[in-house]
Amino acid sequence: MIIEVGDEILNDLKILKGNFIFTKEKDFFEIHEKSFLIIKNKRVLGIYKNLPKKYEPIKVKDYKDAIIIPSFVDLHVHAPQYLQQGVGLDLELIDWLNKYTFENEMKFVNENYAKKIYSAFVKDLYDNGTLRSCIFGTIHNNSNQILIEEIKKRKISAFVGKVNMDQNAPENLLQTTDDSLKETIEFIDNNSKEDLIKPIITPRFAPSCSLDLLKKLGDLSVKKKIPVQTHLSENKDEVKWVKSLFPSNKNYSDVYLKNQLYGMEKTIMAHAIYLEEEEIKMAKNKNVYLVHCPDANINLSSGIMPVTKYLDMGIQVGLGSDVGAGHMISMTNTIKSAIQSSKIRHIFNNNERILTESEAFYLATKLNGSFFGKTGSFEKGYLFDAIVIDSNQNVIKELSPLEKLERFIYCGDKNDIIARYLEGEEV
Amino acid sequence: MIIEVGDEILNDLKILKGNFIFTKEKDFFEIHEKSFLIIKNKRVLGIYKNLPKKYEPIKVKDYKDAIIIPSFVDLHVHAPQYLQQGVGLDLELIDWLNKYTFENEMKFVNENYAKKIYSAFVKDLYDNGTLRSCIFGTIHNNSNQILIEEIKKRKISAFVGKVNMDQNAPENLLQTTDDSLKETIEFIDNNSKEDLIKPIITPRFAPSCSLDLLKKLGDLSVKKKIPVQTHLSENKDEVKWVKSLFPSNKNYSDVYLKNQLYGMEKTIMAHAIYLEEEEIKMAKNKNVYLVHCPDANINLSSGIMPVTKYLDMGIQVGLGSDVGAGHMISMTNTIKSAIQSSKIRHIFNNNERILTESEAFYLATKLNGSFFGKTGSFEKGYLFDAIVIDSNQNVIKELSPLEKLERFIYCGDKNDIIARYLEGEEV
Repeated sequence: MIIEVGDEILNDLKILKGNFIFTKEKDFFEIHEKSFLIIKNKRVLGIYKNLPKKYEPIKVKDYKDAIIIPSFVDLHVHAPQYLQQGVGLDLELIDWLNKYTFENEMKFVNENYAKKIYSAFVKDLYDNGTLRSCIFGTIHNNSNQILIEEIKKRKISAFVGKVNMDQNAPENLLQTTDDSLKETIEFIDNNSKEDLIKPIITPRFAPSCSLDLLKKLGDLSVKKKIPVQTHLSENKDEVKWVKSLFPSNKNYSDVYLKNQLYGMEKTIMAHAIYLEEEEIKMAKNKNVYLVHCPDANINLSSGIMPVTKYLDMGIQVGLGSDVGAGHMISMTNTIKSAIQSSKIRHIFNNNERILTESEAFYLATKLNGSFFGKTGSFEKGYLFDAIVIDSNQNVIKELSPLEKLERFIYCGDKNDIIARYLEGEEV
Repeated sequence: MIIEVGDEILNDLKILKGNFIFTKEKDFFEIHEKSFLIIKNKRVLGIYKNLPKKYEPIKVKDYKDAIIIPSFVDLHVHAPQYLQQGVGLDLELIDWLNKYTFENEMKFVNENYAKKIYSAFVKDLYDNGTLRSCIFGTIHNNSNQILIEEIKKRKISAFVGKVNMDQNAPENLLQTTDDSLKETIEFIDNNSKEDLIKPIITPRFAPSCSLDLLKKLGDLSVKKKIPVQTHLSENKDEVKWVKSLFPSNKNYSDVYLKNQLYGMEKTIMAHAIYLEEEEIKMAKNKNVYLVHCPDANINLSSGIMPVTKYLDMGIQVGLGSDVGAGHMISMTNTIKSAIQSSKIRHIFNNNERILTESEAFYLATKLNGSFFGKTGSFEKGYLFDAIVIDSNQNVIKELSPLEKLERFIYCGDKNDIIARYLEGEEV
């Protein structure tokens, strides 16, 4: 039977009740206590304090005192580094890559190993309420495909990149320029028909790629309209190294720009700590995402992105867990660390303002979400991607919905998440 | 039946098997893989790779692949601030005290409220493997006694302080100098017979106490041989305030020193960020514990203790979660944050060295433990205080015992702790 009211077919609708919190604007939280949210065709139709009479025939899923927030989006994370969390963090970037990371990534030639690590990695994303993410795989397409299958099983969403390297890494992590390109094309072609999972072009970082490879990847991105993710200006020694490897480019960003890997399609540049003023302006003009990975940057003693400076210039600043240099996959931890990192910059330079809690939350939900389309907010027309949070600690009942969210961000954990929704469906 | 071998009565012994890790020295981990640890009369008798033949009649508790480490000690934590974790962290110290903390502490005049918060707080200490701690209560002795009963129930160990304030706080958090002193004496006398729980004299910080109160508390400490805990030099504005309140003292430390609250008995000075050189030397000479609370200091934008500088001078540097300005009770989080904080100082000043992982672990176990006696290590003669860690994640099996510990510190949680021992008994 089809229930119809006016021109609306009510069978298509879902209604949740609870305390909804989200950030339409970065400067404040929108809080809808004990309200009704209506989902129609995957998207938010509206939030009502009192349920309109015409919707009364529809069953309401009542989450009572729980808070319901947009699920998290992670714009920078390395799936193969999942077991590296917390290990080897006494080193800085280049040594950490050579001593731990490359050694580790070689193991992904073995599909059994990949299956073990990737299933744990994807489960952890899911458990922590990160339902969309931009993920680095390795150079190995068989293993990358296993990663994609694991993501599919959990019914979550991701951009996944086959990593490209044809120089400056151990021999068995390198491919010829042609093989690297050919396998990237295969990876894209094999994975272009999924709704929730998409390929993304992923040169590891400038030093790992010859100019020829960078140019061909840029051409491919433009020709097939595929977005790009890579690293930029994470560590001072890395910046010097890039200057010596690419002497004809004005700066690090220019290496990507000149090869059509910067802002032609949607582009993620992870880290972006030591940018020259010209590069900062370019990030704004080209509308790339500069992705702040606060824990990874401290763990490898790299530095701290001037996040409020970038934000106040109107740059799209995203957030990333950057596991494994980042030690936790949880985006609540990343939100907390982004706030702490801005406080540290403020301690050392009073002129830099602190990132507020609502801003950091906005970055991890609505701004990060914009890379995937209309998600990360509960405004009308947004895909309903959400997590429901209800600590089983009795003492939490003393808190207001916003305080519950603050506590969840600072000291909650995955066990507090009692339900997950992607595009209107519980997953 | 008594089993006897030579002059040893074996019934008194317990034997555990597993992977034991601890820090006898701060510069490296001692790792005893698949070994046997023998406990006699609460204390470690020895660790053996192969169990000596005479002990074979004793049943061995085999923890298999789990790692076994000293349980954690927290040298600075505020029980009444338990529900404040994550809330109000946009403010700096003095405003945070006035706007959130004092308002919150007033509620502890209500014993029902105290019971609810303190039972959750103590459970969280226990759950996180912090089996000994130095705790601030409030001014309210009835509630402080409830805190002590909760600690007793969990069979863990603590120094607990009745907070003293007779100035510079809202009226209903102040007591007269005489009442404050009288109730401190009562609190000490009521709680001096416990084995695991001891009173500690706790002037909140210099600004909250008149010179008269400080002097009387110092006299009391010396007369009854009671240790002291308080705050020192956490925030620049606080340091200026103390100078204006106590103009005849040379510096902040001197306010405590001149009143016999500094190094006469065992003494904890939390924070100690902005010390003058003379104060740093005094900390060493007087053998006080300067307690580093890295998260609290960043959350309130206070600053960062120069922890490796102090350590290299031979100062006793302890670690504290400082809940609620610190947002997590877990000492693994505090270990991680202490390392990160030292990396931040290193980023801003290359001359300052980074705190190593073994050093940070040593602080949270053996050094913090020294405040309680011989605990925090598995050397012969140490009280066997321990936690057993075994993640239920299948993927962890790939890791060595040390890597398991590193992962536990950086991204494990209380659910990974499968057993807790205090003074040789499972609790």
